[in-house]
Amino acid sequence: MANQSSLNTYGERIDRRLGELLPPADAVPEKLHEAMRHSCLAPGKRLRPALAMACAESIGGNGDSVLDAGCAIEFVHCFSLIHDDLPAIDNDDLRRGIPTCHKVFGEAIAILAGDALFALAFDTLANGPWPADQRVRAIRSLTLATGSSGLVGGETIDILSEGKPIERSTLELIHARKTGSLIASSCEIGAILAGATSDQSGQLYRYGQAIGLAFQIADDLLNETSTAAQLGKAAGSDRERGKATYPAMFGVEASRRMAIETAESGIACLVDIPNPNLLAELARYSVERLR
Amino acid sequence: MANQSSLNTYGERIDRRLGELLPPADAVPEKLHEAMRHSCLAPGKRLRPALAMACAESIGGNGDSVLDAGCAIEFVHCFSLIHDDLPAIDNDDLRRGIPTCHKVFGEAIAILAGDALFALAFDTLANGPWPADQRVRAIRSLTLATGSSGLVGGETIDILSEGKPIERSTLELIHARKTGSLIASSCEIGAILAGATSDQSGQLYRYGQAIGLAFQIADDLLNETSTAAQLGKAAGSDRERGKATYPAMFGVEASRRMAIETAESGIACLVDIPNPNLLAELARYSVERLR
Repeated sequence: MANQSSLNTYGERIDRRLGELLPPADAVPEKLHEAMRHSCLAPGKRLRPALAMACAESIGGNGDSVLDAGCAIEFVHCFSLIHDDLPAIDNDDLRRGIPTCHKVFGEAIAILAGDALFALAFDTLANGPWPADQRVRAIRSLTLATGSSGLVGGETIDILSEGKPIERSTLELIHARKTGSLIASSCEIGAILAGATSDQSGQLYRYGQAIGLAFQIADDLLNETSTAAQLGKAAGSDRERGKATYPAMFGVEASRRMAIETAESGIACLVDIPNPNLLAELARYSVERLR
Repeated sequence: MANQSSLNTYGERIDRRLGELLPPADAVPEKLHEAMRHSCLAPGKRLRPALAMACAESIGGNGDSVLDAGCAIEFVHCFSLIHDDLPAIDNDDLRRGIPTCHKVFGEAIAILAGDALFALAFDTLANGPWPADQRVRAIRSLTLATGSSGLVGGETIDILSEGKPIERSTLELIHARKTGSLIASSCEIGAILAGATSDQSGQLYRYGQAIGLAFQIADDLLNETSTAAQLGKAAGSDRERGKATYPAMFGVEASRRMAIETAESGIACLVDIPNPNLLAELARYSVERLR
């Protein structure tokens, strides 16, 4: 698959740079830094940094020039996974094929490692080589995507809805905030730091919202239909927990169609983007896993 | 006390502005916003925002022009209190005279409310009315003060040291990172956003480090010698937990002298500050409580 291999090409550069930007494991406090590296350097798709780089390239910029910003976004993603996996929240033992942070380092260090990764994300954006006004815009995009109107808010609505009947609008709100906002922000940040026009960054943001939703529906479906070995985390755990998901609300077949249509609607946003091909491939990859 | 009343004057403006900057309790997700407001609007000294405002004024700037930055720092302080109070870390039931966040809202919401406050802090700095390069410098100061080399790192060393014999250098490291770094950053951010020279912001940073240490030694002493009603949290809890403190290492009388000398050493840093009087008062207030 061309799209999977594009992700892989970015992935190597992203993995190397994540390792450089994270504090070394032998610096004080070692345990905290080991925990941060454990969770961030576990094998991952690196979808968010890859999208930031692909969006920069789609408007004629250099993907590597936004690599550090992509890593900042990955730090936020890892921080949110560590906190979501905690016993008080989703209580997951396995993530990306290895034990979750609190299973290895204990709850206290896991909470603090998440906090430190969140700080490192903003540190990485604030210290980047881009003009100050672009850095500020990128940081604003990231704070909106992560705070109570973004992924932390989405996670809150998700856990408060567990085991309760919910409306379609609530399910859409959970997915838009919990997954869509950070993926959309990844696209927007790549665009901002590569000098996009405001039309372009708006289109790339909406593209990101769409493929974020497509990706989440696909994840919900895979959680239903895969084994733990395939997922790298517990399978069927959403259902057991009474989590709101697309397959639970609409069934497997309708959800599959919705994911594909949503990915296509994202591609349709890219009207002023000179090189949209890779983004179209990535959008299709986000649901390709389902075919 | 002139200094206490200075803190009070700032305090009213800070409390009002915190309430305006926090998301309203009736916005979705309500429970998260209630938890954020519960912990941030509980009565507090507001030392950090007051220092930011006083530092701006000490170099001829307008204290109110950095009020929002002071509130951003207070959001970080509240986030760190919520997470430190969690059962997995310090397991405290009482803070600022009211039940801790997780006692009222549960652990999951408390973790997420802390995370959302951290995002709100950077959001508030990134959206402020200051020039973009000053905003970036302020954000860099805050990330350094909060991450693994700042308060999260200090908290980590603190909990890893509980119940173990430690060196004086480790105790100093804990206090410098856990308390000193954010108080020093409060001073530096007030200075940066009021247009300080680099000499001035450096002096105000070192002043902040000193009074941060003095304040922490005073807190350690008060934790030993006060009642829960006076403190608004459990008294003597540091000792019971085997926490590293100045009185445990040096005794009460020597600690008291060290706090006073440290505050004076902070005042001595202010050589290029045109209006140092209020800062000198605040430094003395930080240990006044001990006389």
